[in-house]
Amino acid sequence: MSGPPRAVALARLHVRAALAPLAVEHPGALVLVACSGGADSLALAATTAFVAPRLGLRAGAVVVDHRLQDGSDQVAADAAARCRALGLDPVEVRTVQVARGPGSGGPEGAARDARYAALGEAADQRGAVAVLLGHTADDQAESVLLGLARGSGARSLSGMRAEVGRLRRPLLALRRSETEEVCSAAGVDWWTDPTNAGDGPDAPLRSRVRATVLPLLDDVLGPGVVDALVRTADQLHDDDAALSALARDLLSAALVDEDGPGRVLLDVAVLEAALPALRTRALRLAALAAGCPAGALGREHVLSLDGLLTRWRGQGPLHLPGGVTATRVCGRLVLEPPHH
Amino acid sequence: MSGPPRAVALARLHVRAALAPLAVEHPGALVLVACSGGADSLALAATTAFVAPRLGLRAGAVVVDHRLQDGSDQVAADAAARCRALGLDPVEVRTVQVARGPGSGGPEGAARDARYAALGEAADQRGAVAVLLGHTADDQAESVLLGLARGSGARSLSGMRAEVGRLRRPLLALRRSETEEVCSAAGVDWWTDPTNAGDGPDAPLRSRVRATVLPLLDDVLGPGVVDALVRTADQLHDDDAALSALARDLLSAALVDEDGPGRVLLDVAVLEAALPALRTRALRLAALAAGCPAGALGREHVLSLDGLLTRWRGQGPLHLPGGVTATRVCGRLVLEPPHH
Repeated sequence: MSGPPRAVALARLHVRAALAPLAVEHPGALVLVACSGGADSLALAATTAFVAPRLGLRAGAVVVDHRLQDGSDQVAADAAARCRALGLDPVEVRTVQVARGPGSGGPEGAARDARYAALGEAADQRGAVAVLLGHTADDQAESVLLGLARGSGARSLSGMRAEVGRLRRPLLALRRSETEEVCSAAGVDWWTDPTNAGDGPDAPLRSRVRATVLPLLDDVLGPGVVDALVRTADQLHDDDAALSALARDLLSAALVDEDGPGRVLLDVAVLEAALPALRTRALRLAALAAGCPAGALGREHVLSLDGLLTRWRGQGPLHLPGGVTATRVCGRLVLEPPHH
Repeated sequence: MSGPPRAVALARLHVRAALAPLAVEHPGALVLVACSGGADSLALAATTAFVAPRLGLRAGAVVVDHRLQDGSDQVAADAAARCRALGLDPVEVRTVQVARGPGSGGPEGAARDARYAALGEAADQRGAVAVLLGHTADDQAESVLLGLARGSGARSLSGMRAEVGRLRRPLLALRRSETEEVCSAAGVDWWTDPTNAGDGPDAPLRSRVRATVLPLLDDVLGPGVVDALVRTADQLHDDDAALSALARDLLSAALVDEDGPGRVLLDVAVLEAALPALRTRALRLAALAAGCPAGALGREHVLSLDGLLTRWRGQGPLHLPGGVTATRVCGRLVLEPPHH
């Protein structure tokens, strides 16, 4: 007697590991699968339809229609029909309005924001204890590579988390090709998003990474490269979490005073004695506290600020994004918001 | 009146920054440029020939002949002649024997080991206070990508250091193309290593990354990707240094006893209370102390060891590389070398 295909067994194992603690805490509760109609989220839907009832949980699905392509309503309706056929209940389609134009963080960012908001609303209204997302190891590897391109350190390299609030990503250990095997084994057809396959200059950055960079890395560095990127993301996440926690402690220890809205006074001696990785993170937090906008505060600003500590030669005030000034006076580092 | 080309000014700035502290500490001392005859190390030779005397230092060069290709002696002799023409003195060629066969860390690793040994000997014999290496931002970016492929976390991603012992790498902020501009401005011809340009399956891994991966990343992720990889390396180096230092402290705090050669006893409660990034690093150090060979000890072993702390359900002893066993007994984690 042979068991299910390996990919199916693997998916079930990981979905079970994600749902089991919820089943203990919330017996009989509802979990919602976020389904796009693609192989990854339909594999998740099929697996959850199998696993959830065996743990005493109910499983439903939410399909988000972003209305960004012609026929997206039909894609969404098909995905919902497939979820219903798999036995998920309730299944609903939510149509969202994606913000356009400047300030919306780019079309991909805006679509993501709208999608997560809709998923959160659906969970609230249905009383779901978790929303399951179908991100795979390939998505994680792409995130690490996109983070590399930003060059902003461990945080941007650490990718997506398996668990954030109500969100769960049980398939992060599976390859995208394995989710296709799961769909095939379940007899489910999936939809291939044409914008995901693009490698032209107009395709989204993530799609170009998927279509060209990952296959080349696979070829040059060996087929283990996706696993290596996923391991890297895990380790760097732990690293960043530890360093961020220790940097918050350091900032508290260095804080002399905060005598007015946003003015931050820090003890130079405490900061000087700290390890560089903690000091630069604490300085970044202090600059944010003084009013620097997070998006505009780069590594170079933090290093200039660090220069007031480690390369001190009596230099004048430093001008940071958002009109914040930093001055070293009498053994203190003073960060002042504008018009103070 | 116009100054030197930007690449020349940039190279001089960074070489001066590397040499100035040496000039203060060791006036009149000798520094040696490690020169292969390529654009990067000849740019370093030309720049050092200009900067060193102005700081009151003497500048010489060492050319290492690895004898791995036909005609390598001629390449080395040409490189030495160019260094002499630039005014460097003394200039010497050192021929090395590169270890072959298993256990030598691959042909590239063996050549590197032999080269660094020869450079160290030359510095000893000449009484040089520093050996300057011509690695560029491109080399650093390649190192980060090769580290990614190993997937072993911040340490393997943090690339090469600007300063290690007597070694200095003043050109890490320059692009390889800028070193070619420096050579052209100095009227120096350089040699192009044919094995560096290869992108076939037999070319060294680093050469394939150089020939195919970096250009594609440049194209897809944008021309800032090399800078981003270099910034990533810098930040992850600081991160790893901080976490390693804190992990050593944690290991000291958790150490109950070491009652016999290599047997390590750790306090479970101390380790359980620590941040995961520190705990896993401390466990890795403990496993190395108990006799696990560094090359064979992977992330998966460390995570299994961590499972004795964080996923404890009375499981039996764990077998680690090198015959080391790990057991949890009465609130202690015991790591034992073989035949104890």
